Amino acid sequence: MSVFTEKMCFVLCVFIMGWVMFGQAVFAQGISARMEHPNLVLTKDGVAAVRNGLEKYPLLGATFDKTKKDVDASIADGIEVPVPKDAGGGYTHEKHKHNYSAANKAGILWQVSGEKKYAVFARDMLLKYAALYPSLGVHPEGKNSSSPGKIFWQSLNDAVWLVNMIQTYDAVYDFCKPQERRIIEDSLFRKAVEFNVIDCKKVFNMIHNHGAWNVAGVMMTGFVLGDSAMISDALDNFLALVNNLYSPDGYYIEGPYYLRYAYWPFGLTATAIANNLSSLNIFAYRDSVLLKAPLVMLQMTDPTGHFLPFNDAIKEKAWTSQEVISAVDIVYFRTKNHSLLHVAAEQGTVMLSSEGVEVAKAIAEGKAPKSFKRYSVMLRDGADGNKGGVGILRSGQDDDQISVVMKYGVYGMEHGHYDKLSFMMYDQNRDIIKDYGAVRYLNIVQKRGGRYLPENKTFGKQTVAHNTIVVDEKSQYGASAVIADDKHSNALYFNADNGNFQVMSAIDTTAYSGVSLWRTMAMFKYDIAEKPVIIDVFKVMSNEPHIYDLPYYYAGTLVETGVKYDAHKEWSPLGKKYGYQHLFNVAEASVDTNSTFFTWYLDKRFYTLITTTTPSTEVFFVQVGATDPEMSLRPEKAFIVRNKNVSNYTVASVLEPHGEYNEPFEFVNGAYSNFKNISVIKDSENSVDVSVGTKDGREWLLSIDRNNATVKKIK
Amino acid sequence: MSVFTEKMCFVLCVFIMGWVMFGQAVFAQGISARMEHPNLVLTKDGVAAVRNGLEKYPLLGATFDKTKKDVDASIADGIEVPVPKDAGGGYTHEKHKHNYSAANKAGILWQVSGEKKYAVFARDMLLKYAALYPSLGVHPEGKNSSSPGKIFWQSLNDAVWLVNMIQTYDAVYDFCKPQERRIIEDSLFRKAVEFNVIDCKKVFNMIHNHGAWNVAGVMMTGFVLGDSAMISDALDNFLALVNNLYSPDGYYIEGPYYLRYAYWPFGLTATAIANNLSSLNIFAYRDSVLLKAPLVMLQMTDPTGHFLPFNDAIKEKAWTSQEVISAVDIVYFRTKNHSLLHVAAEQGTVMLSSEGVEVAKAIAEGKAPKSFKRYSVMLRDGADGNKGGVGILRSGQDDDQISVVMKYGVYGMEHGHYDKLSFMMYDQNRDIIKDYGAVRYLNIVQKRGGRYLPENKTFGKQTVAHNTIVVDEKSQYGASAVIADDKHSNALYFNADNGNFQVMSAIDTTAYSGVSLWRTMAMFKYDIAEKPVIIDVFKVMSNEPHIYDLPYYYAGTLVETGVKYDAHKEWSPLGKKYGYQHLFNVAEASVDTNSTFFTWYLDKRFYTLITTTTPSTEVFFVQVGATDPEMSLRPEKAFIVRNKNVSNYTVASVLEPHGEYNEPFEFVNGAYSNFKNISVIKDSENSVDVSVGTKDGREWLLSIDRNNATVKKIK
Repeated sequence: MSVFTEKMCFVLCVFIMGWVMFGQAVFAQGISARMEHPNLVLTKDGVAAVRNGLEKYPLLGATFDKTKKDVDASIADGIEVPVPKDAGGGYTHEKHKHNYSAANKAGILWQVSGEKKYAVFARDMLLKYAALYPSLGVHPEGKNSSSPGKIFWQSLNDAVWLVNMIQTYDAVYDFCKPQERRIIEDSLFRKAVEFNVIDCKKVFNMIHNHGAWNVAGVMMTGFVLGDSAMISDALDNFLALVNNLYSPDGYYIEGPYYLRYAYWPFGLTATAIANNLSSLNIFAYRDSVLLKAPLVMLQMTDPTGHFLPFNDAIKEKAWTSQEVISAVDIVYFRTKNHSLLHVAAEQGTVMLSSEGVEVAKAIAEGKAPKSFKRYSVMLRDGADGNKGGVGILRSGQDDDQISVVMKYGVYGMEHGHYDKLSFMMYDQNRDIIKDYGAVRYLNIVQKRGGRYLPENKTFGKQTVAHNTIVVDEKSQYGASAVIADDKHSNALYFNADNGNFQVMSAIDTTAYSGVSLWRTMAMFKYDIAEKPVIIDVFKVMSNEPHIYDLPYYYAGTLVETGVKYDAHKEWSPLGKKYGYQHLFNVAEASVDTNSTFFTWYLDKRFYTLITTTTPSTEVFFVQVGATDPEMSLRPEKAFIVRNKNVSNYTVASVLEPHGEYNEPFEFVNGAYSNFKNISVIKDSENSVDVSVGTKDGREWLLSIDRNNATVKKIK
Repeated sequence: MSVFTEKMCFVLCVFIMGWVMFGQAVFAQGISARMEHPNLVLTKDGVAAVRNGLEKYPLLGATFDKTKKDVDASIADGIEVPVPKDAGGGYTHEKHKHNYSAANKAGILWQVSGEKKYAVFARDMLLKYAALYPSLGVHPEGKNSSSPGKIFWQSLNDAVWLVNMIQTYDAVYDFCKPQERRIIEDSLFRKAVEFNVIDCKKVFNMIHNHGAWNVAGVMMTGFVLGDSAMISDALDNFLALVNNLYSPDGYYIEGPYYLRYAYWPFGLTATAIANNLSSLNIFAYRDSVLLKAPLVMLQMTDPTGHFLPFNDAIKEKAWTSQEVISAVDIVYFRTKNHSLLHVAAEQGTVMLSSEGVEVAKAIAEGKAPKSFKRYSVMLRDGADGNKGGVGILRSGQDDDQISVVMKYGVYGMEHGHYDKLSFMMYDQNRDIIKDYGAVRYLNIVQKRGGRYLPENKTFGKQTVAHNTIVVDEKSQYGASAVIADDKHSNALYFNADNGNFQVMSAIDTTAYSGVSLWRTMAMFKYDIAEKPVIIDVFKVMSNEPHIYDLPYYYAGTLVETGVKYDAHKEWSPLGKKYGYQHLFNVAEASVDTNSTFFTWYLDKRFYTLITTTTPSTEVFFVQVGATDPEMSLRPEKAFIVRNKNVSNYTVASVLEPHGEYNEPFEFVNGAYSNFKNISVIKDSENSVDVSVGTKDGREWLLSIDRNNATVKKIK
């Protein structure tokens, strides 16, 4: 109960009082009697709205037609409910996934069209599962999961199956005969709930996105079966999840890529709660965090709608993914935020429910804007919003927007990476300074069933796979998730009010014992420059000397650098552990100047990073792909700037997008950086002054302290 | 004169008779008197047509507005004609390029708009060049070119400059005062022609695309100055170029990438000839080869309009490049082939001339088709069409087209590669079995001035960089261009009449002494398969045992293979020369089965190659990038199937595109090949029988001989 706010507590007390007053059975019967079907996500009103909108709103009609076509094909194929055998991507896995999706859709079609064949298909599917389910033990491939399922190799998929199948049942409840209902409820749903609650107790009670699916399945089953014990158990856990997984800003603990998936059960469950326990006012809970979160998630995309690939993320995932459809529709339905219509239009499909009807209607009325506006934004991390966060500075609009993202929040549960104070830079609609993301080929069964590959742990998560300082060639927290899990960086400030000088600053004292890392990144539109530059001041403090490695994973072709490197004839791994074993040492160099530069180009533009160096600076040019027995890694490239035998050290860099590479008209402008130098001119514990100058003699002074950063032109 | 056909000879005789009869001076004066200005590409009629069409045809109007904007900006910047200093990409290089382009456009604007500022700008530019030109020696960066220029580092650019500047002069001829004309003609154009004809004699007389620019410049200058000696010299060379660089099918000796550039002077010169010596009927010459060639070139693009990257090719180049605009407009003007309108619409700009008006008009009338249709086609190589060729088999349309391309023509002059019988496969709008193309970063001045890099010769051109058999780890012709230059493969047959079984076969006995290479490739749409498979039968015959390496450069992620490989911890070059020094040996395997397979995926689809093996077969997984001191190579991946100590050997393979990877809806279908095995069941000098079978028990027999190939279902 500790998870409840006062208001919620009141509402639930009323609920529990009812339960206590009437006794469980009576109350359950009471709900059962009151509940009409369907009433989870699709409601009686929703059915009427869909029917009414089919001809009027093209997107709704198209979705309906597509759904009909899919289900008709499934009906033609006949129902097959195979004994579970294969892992992700394999035959039985894909078949059961197909089944729950087809059944859920058939239920909706029955409600909307009244065509009996859909009800028959849905009911027969339920009965076939009811016949099989009681005989199922643990899935034969369950050994690969920390929480095996029965129908699928991991219980997560079983929970998703339940969420779909209970909606199916809700849709055909009235169609089923009482004896069919008894079979379906007793042999299937009560047993499935038992599995979800008892066998998967750990997951059901876990503060984790997997738990959200279990909770969703149990809660929805409770609503349909009129079982208040299920509802109560699930509701308690649901609120605990909402309280702990989201920050007050709506930032989700595992980052945008996982929220894409995680919000699915949150959105559906909240909708079912809103439809069945409307007095809870669930969407207003925690200052409407469940409405904020999807908007925050969409802000954390690149201009093509791909999610910023924090943590374990498949970089191909974009907002067009099916799992994002309900998030967009549910939030639009309750906020009427028009920016969501742009996303819905790109998705090209809507929910067949009240939510989807509203979206399709608004799009038909021409309300969808041409683009989704992305802004500079700082998102606090942690349930109370005091565990650092993620900062995004942006300049320009739409296709012409440059973004820089810094991550300084919590570890992010088991999908987290050791990437405190790492950054990414976006331009030309893609990542220019890159994060590798997850090492995984999702759904490619030949690549270990589509699961995370071992290199995800040995490389993807490690600090050296990120654009942040690695101390002594080790990962943050010694690559221990247990240690990392309750640590976080701290936000110092974030200021995007001045479009010409936006700045964010964060500090971390937890990642490396005895070392404090303080990074300040500014997006600076100097004078009348069309494009901003990124100024990056990374200050490291320690009482002991260390090796500090700062990698930059760049996209494109390196065309010039200020260092004289030796390219190795044979390639060997750069190190033995903490991810270094996966980096080939391609070339290396010593630096004997005060600063050096790296210029590369990609598509239509050049990029130059000028960075301060010391007499001990070395540079390694690396390529990902060493120690890769199954040839799973992509050959990404980076340069690593190393400073060794230093204790306190501040590196200042300016990263400039410049010039134009015009391929059709075959000309090049501005292939060289406009900047000449950058240097740290004052450096103390709590402040740093940096000067940066252009080749045409202009110069600026950047003054950074713990509370603020400012810039002024000095020449 | 030997290059003339009878008909041409007649026409030119008339011309020469006139010259002889009236004496050179008189005749020249005669032409001069007859010639109105402008009359090269833009004519008086063209000016009227452009004026008339500006308001009516949006594409013409847009091109005009854009041109006006560009030139207005140039006028605002003022004229700068710097003393030549920089190589390609550098300041003076780009400035002079900008100048000739701006001047040429200003001339056109003057003609069309009658606004005096354009004439003044063009004239003043001419006068500034006239003031500078006589003082110029060889360009300071000329040492990097086999034929240095004066204004540019290579004379090629000087010739392009001349072609633009003489059109400029033609446009403002009437505007210039007689004394200005004298200065411009004597100090600039006569000297420039002298440079092009005398100093660059080798280039001017060369059968080569560079020569085409010199010839164009000299011929156009001849027309404008009324100098019949110039015209005669240039015409003779022009016809020699047309006779020798194009095959009767319009295939250009250097391949489609270079024709893109080479056709520019051909199209402009032929247009100027048509406007000034119309009785020559130049576009009908050699069975209209100058109208065929651009159409052939456009057939040799992928579905996104990128040129098949034969030989030295920059893979980014597409039909939207500026150099393709005039080719499309000129050919449309004279053929009214509507497919060209699709390309013109994608280019989004037209010539400001009669040609461009016709294109813009047709597009305004809605005549542009939605797509450009690509067909299966065999293009003969060699001036007489008997030197092998290029075969392209295609199945499906537009975005859903699969293509396989085999190259079995001539070497292709100094931009040729040692790639006889190499193939590429296209699907999903891109190359799936890839050709590396050229090692060059065009116009990136930091990469050796944008010139070809040394690795172009040591890797890009070498046989092992291509998807064809390498014998004894050496390149074809011992990588000697001199030897390769007059050798060619022979086409055996090409048959695309049966859409379900298209086949092409070619043989080469010149690439390796004592070794005959015979490759037959079929595109086979078995039974009711949606997608065809590629069947590849490569027969090698020799009296001596050799090492035969067959690389497959694949795009995507390898997900499974039938061989058990050891991935190397340290990467070393696979060999020492012939390109092997640039390949890292990533992993290797021995094969102990009769066939093996490789499955990879890219974007939405899987690909499996099943290939026959012998007890001596080894497999190497390689990555490009070894011995690369300037880090210029892309990390492309290949597997190389090696058979050693065999003399006669036939390898048969089936390459199947299969399955679907649906990312938004997160499902995978058909991740495994439908095929089970392939084997060579009969093998003699002149014929091979191959059987290929699917996992569901179907089997086909492919019978190949020197004259034909057939397939029949046997199970």
